[in-house]
Amino acid sequence: MNKFTLHPQLAKDCFVIQDLELCRLLLMNDKNYPWCILVPMREEKKDIYELADAEQKLFITESSRLSAVMMKLFQGKKMNVAALGNKVSQLHIHHIVRFEGDPCWPKPVWGQVVPVLYSSEEAEALIAKIKAAL
Amino acid sequence: MNKFTLHPQLAKDCFVIQDLELCRLLLMNDKNYPWCILVPMREEKKDIYELADAEQKLFITESSRLSAVMMKLFQGKKMNVAALGNKVSQLHIHHIVRFEGDPCWPKPVWGQVVPVLYSSEEAEALIAKIKAAL
Repeated sequence: MNKFTLHPQLAKDCFVIQDLELCRLLLMNDKNYPWCILVPMREEKKDIYELADAEQKLFITESSRLSAVMMKLFQGKKMNVAALGNKVSQLHIHHIVRFEGDPCWPKPVWGQVVPVLYSSEEAEALIAKIKAAL
Repeated sequence: MNKFTLHPQLAKDCFVIQDLELCRLLLMNDKNYPWCILVPMREEKKDIYELADAEQKLFITESSRLSAVMMKLFQGKKMNVAALGNKVSQLHIHHIVRFEGDPCWPKPVWGQVVPVLYSSEEAEALIAKIKAAL
């Protein structure tokens, strides 16, 4: 039985793309950057090292697959992959495609600029594009 | 033959703790937080997904072992694990123990406050402590 529930802050800030084997894949509602989040569907984990060994390996496989797909789709300069979680304690790992000249380049994105929200049509199209590429 | 050379910026900012199977383990010279960095000893990699599958799995094993050891040693509130590399392109992954009330809490640490340098004695003692725990 899967008792996993997505943290309400993540549910509020993101669209659900789809569930992978380990992680729920989210799209952050911020047009400033192509920004996905992986949330391992395990209760009460806040750090990657708390996952079981097999889950850690599954995580890195899903993370790398997602990173490769995002870099291919968006032709960015650099992936930023980060597990921070100082504010939202549920383990979640950011995957952000960065470009020279994006609104925060070369700084990390958190807390820098106000998110620019997608329209429903834009979000749907982007989610379909990512799903098709995975 | 291992042609790996540590990026000069990382060499300048950090102490070398030791080489693991995949990664060179560094201590960031900043007393504000217990802050280690893993640098996979592979030339010309800038993102985790560019490592071979077996290397990705070795990376997550070394990362999680380091995270668990750091959290046990320093009894922090949260690990921050991040591969950014927008400025220093050589693949390197930050591992930072965060505390409620540390100089940047709850923000990410990058670019926020001036580093506070260790004395030689402090750095040696801390490196010995981390080596012994690994």
